Amino acid sequence: MNAPPLYLRMHPSDNVAIVANDGGLAAGMRFADGIVLLESIPQGHKLALQAIAAGQAVLRYGVRIGIAKEDIAAGAWVHEQRLLMPDAPSLDTLPTCQPITTPLPALTGYSFQGYRNADGTVGTRNILAISSTVQCVAGVLDVAIQRIKTELLPMYPQVDDVVALEHAYGCGVAIDAPGAEIPIRTLRHLALNPNFGGEVMLVSLGCEKLQPERLLPPGSLPIQAMGAESKSQLRLQDPAHQGFQAMLQAIIEQAHHHLQRLNQRRRETVPASALIVGVQCGGSDAFSGLTANPAVGFCTDLLVRAGATVLFSEVTEVRDAADQLCARASSPEVAQAIRREMAWYDAYLQRGGADRSANTTPGNKQGGLSNIVEKAMGSIVKSGTASIAGVLAPGERVHGQAARGLLFAATPASDFICGTLQLAAGMNLHVFTTGRGTPYGLAACPVLKVATRSELAQRWHDLMDLDAGRIATGEASLEDMGWQLFHLLLDVASGKRTWSEHWGLHNALVLFNPAPVT
Amino acid sequence: MNAPPLYLRMHPSDNVAIVANDGGLAAGMRFADGIVLLESIPQGHKLALQAIAAGQAVLRYGVRIGIAKEDIAAGAWVHEQRLLMPDAPSLDTLPTCQPITTPLPALTGYSFQGYRNADGTVGTRNILAISSTVQCVAGVLDVAIQRIKTELLPMYPQVDDVVALEHAYGCGVAIDAPGAEIPIRTLRHLALNPNFGGEVMLVSLGCEKLQPERLLPPGSLPIQAMGAESKSQLRLQDPAHQGFQAMLQAIIEQAHHHLQRLNQRRRETVPASALIVGVQCGGSDAFSGLTANPAVGFCTDLLVRAGATVLFSEVTEVRDAADQLCARASSPEVAQAIRREMAWYDAYLQRGGADRSANTTPGNKQGGLSNIVEKAMGSIVKSGTASIAGVLAPGERVHGQAARGLLFAATPASDFICGTLQLAAGMNLHVFTTGRGTPYGLAACPVLKVATRSELAQRWHDLMDLDAGRIATGEASLEDMGWQLFHLLLDVASGKRTWSEHWGLHNALVLFNPAPVT
Repeated sequence: MNAPPLYLRMHPSDNVAIVANDGGLAAGMRFADGIVLLESIPQGHKLALQAIAAGQAVLRYGVRIGIAKEDIAAGAWVHEQRLLMPDAPSLDTLPTCQPITTPLPALTGYSFQGYRNADGTVGTRNILAISSTVQCVAGVLDVAIQRIKTELLPMYPQVDDVVALEHAYGCGVAIDAPGAEIPIRTLRHLALNPNFGGEVMLVSLGCEKLQPERLLPPGSLPIQAMGAESKSQLRLQDPAHQGFQAMLQAIIEQAHHHLQRLNQRRRETVPASALIVGVQCGGSDAFSGLTANPAVGFCTDLLVRAGATVLFSEVTEVRDAADQLCARASSPEVAQAIRREMAWYDAYLQRGGADRSANTTPGNKQGGLSNIVEKAMGSIVKSGTASIAGVLAPGERVHGQAARGLLFAATPASDFICGTLQLAAGMNLHVFTTGRGTPYGLAACPVLKVATRSELAQRWHDLMDLDAGRIATGEASLEDMGWQLFHLLLDVASGKRTWSEHWGLHNALVLFNPAPVT
Repeated sequence: MNAPPLYLRMHPSDNVAIVANDGGLAAGMRFADGIVLLESIPQGHKLALQAIAAGQAVLRYGVRIGIAKEDIAAGAWVHEQRLLMPDAPSLDTLPTCQPITTPLPALTGYSFQGYRNADGTVGTRNILAISSTVQCVAGVLDVAIQRIKTELLPMYPQVDDVVALEHAYGCGVAIDAPGAEIPIRTLRHLALNPNFGGEVMLVSLGCEKLQPERLLPPGSLPIQAMGAESKSQLRLQDPAHQGFQAMLQAIIEQAHHHLQRLNQRRRETVPASALIVGVQCGGSDAFSGLTANPAVGFCTDLLVRAGATVLFSEVTEVRDAADQLCARASSPEVAQAIRREMAWYDAYLQRGGADRSANTTPGNKQGGLSNIVEKAMGSIVKSGTASIAGVLAPGERVHGQAARGLLFAATPASDFICGTLQLAAGMNLHVFTTGRGTPYGLAACPVLKVATRSELAQRWHDLMDLDAGRIATGEASLEDMGWQLFHLLLDVASGKRTWSEHWGLHNALVLFNPAPVT
């Protein structure tokens, strides 16, 4: 397939565009409009569409992603060494709140097959989760989970999996220091994820800093309200447990009761509005903002129109779009909350001697993303066009909040920390776009992976769930791809397995702890 | 067994002592010396041996562990509410270096059966380790490890285990921020642990911040020097890997080569000086400093006399003994390095709004430890009496350093972070004392667990490897117990399995990353 030279321009005012062709283009190649490449440019990297003088702005997405360090001729490669990075927008001069945009028209009639929970949430999977207060118990818990999976799970065909909520927190940490509330509430809310059906168990040690009562205050765990508290908590240092085998037996016995109840649950038809979809990107390239992320953005609008909740996150990846986000806030309070979370993160990074520019990776740059500004502009398109209805601080939960629709869930951009915080927020479905390729998966929730390029989708044929690269080649429109993703999400929510579920690919839960360890 | 009331005093100048009896003692009980308890006191908690006026020092270990807040009568319970905590010793007024203490007499003739490595280190186990640059690859690695364990390992009876070095680092982190060198060198040195025999494999993704060349610069991994580099590294984004099953196959094939070589290794008689023993305590109680830790301290002296290296750690647990430690430094440079590490940690905690007092846990306090000063005095006795020959900053490695013998390996006190850093330092044997009880274990190295109380040793009969509680009941002397531990260590180093190995109880590796996540 020897496709003609093709570039992709995002916005009429842009003075750079992206080389679309697989394998890049050699010096001397001529585009249909007559521009000739002065040097070879890899796929996904930028060419100058016109001469750009030193000191002039380089525009992509209609946004200034950098300032030319030197004169750049039309047809030249616009790479990171030729750009100065602009400062982040000041948080003091942001628009407080624009007039509210017209709400998107409602989209009715869409539903999926889900598990209704007593607290009003809906699960897309039926999982027994065993939470833990502290890493000390992880060894025992791992052995117990293996036994439960091998010996009990086959007896309960309606239960999808047994999952340990293990983590590095709980002791050896400054549990009263500023910021410690974040990992604690994250762990608490993880246990309340809709996919666990209110049947979570808790294994604690006994002497740890994070005592069970602090992790799950009375009433916070639905099962406790049902009067079955003794069946859902187990403390290894309890004198009743005469050694390891006794502990193991006790955990397995408790699991039995929970599995019995979970096994009686059945999927029911529920409206699409019960979805809480977390969107994230990882291993991004210049195509992320061209194909997969815009398709996700289109789908985000569909989900919001259908009454669902969509979480977009990753503070350092949207920091450079602070002004755009605040302008989309549904109220001055929401704009203020966006500012608050960004200011908090600015201060957190500064305290550690870093700033938002620490975000970009070698792979981003190889993929054509020159800096965090360009990456951010490609990242926020996942959020679509709806107004932003609310903000969650790290570890906060959707359920119980007034706002639904499009929410900014402030999290670090680390795939695993972001995923863990979105799970804690109540995510029951996860969309993950990738350009370089990552085999990301979570045990607690289905992850649907979208490739930004067809080459990746073909190479990783048994890992990528959707190929958005077809937008770049013209085989599918952005709208087609957005609808395709929307329908696929409803299927996955109803039980269709993603590739990461098929192979059992699960990444670790990683808590965000901005406080010191001791 | 109705034992007579018994208290344990640590030092002739102490004005408090510890209630030794199981279950504690009731008000009105009279000790042999005539002191009568004014109130009921739990086991491990302190009674006043004489009247202590408000403002007077409360002494245990001959050290001021607190100041009486109120008048305390002889026979009263000296609990945390009745004590003010003293300030930490100032790092500016520490002894620079006392005259060097007389070296302990050499102990010759002790050996164990170990695996000699090309770099001069000696393994106590023969393990295939697969390291990773980033959490992104963990899902694939987990599935691969399961397959290798099930399908390959049984064919290689001389290989003890296959272990993934998984972690939350590698991307989504401020990799150039101050402190980032700590997790990076920790990961690098973990791969060089003596128990991996220089046969470590590395699985990377491709686009992550922590590139393989940065994790393991050329020459740092012995296997690379042997010209077999292509057999020990694998990058998932490499175009050669057409999907998940291809990745899996590639990892399994590489593992095959490494297992073949590891399987040819045999144990040889090596001197006890090849041991690098990490000592740690977790879930401490007031007996930790009375029984298990002093026994470990005695054994530490034996090990140092036999030429072995002993690492003691946990900065916040020795901070209050800064003056004692500096006085034991073998040179002014070592004293300076102790001060440097403590000052660094003070600043790290302060930046996060915490101090050393964040160390103690609810379990410590229930176990009778009033504050970090008392805990610290009980903790440092693990280090015995030898002079301190050197200091390792977090993540540094013993091998290649001049100093052997007793080393202060500066680490957080978190059991898992400390254990991970001791593994990175080159630990091939781990001693862990516990009073409240923890089922701690590491996949990379045998962990020998010592109970501080016989009640715990009996209750957790299939988890505790040694009962040091027999010191409190008079059934064994401290010296007996120290020698018993020394011999047991040589047996475990030679292949005898500990309880945590028997059950396969493994805690997570947890990296110490003082820098921000992005």
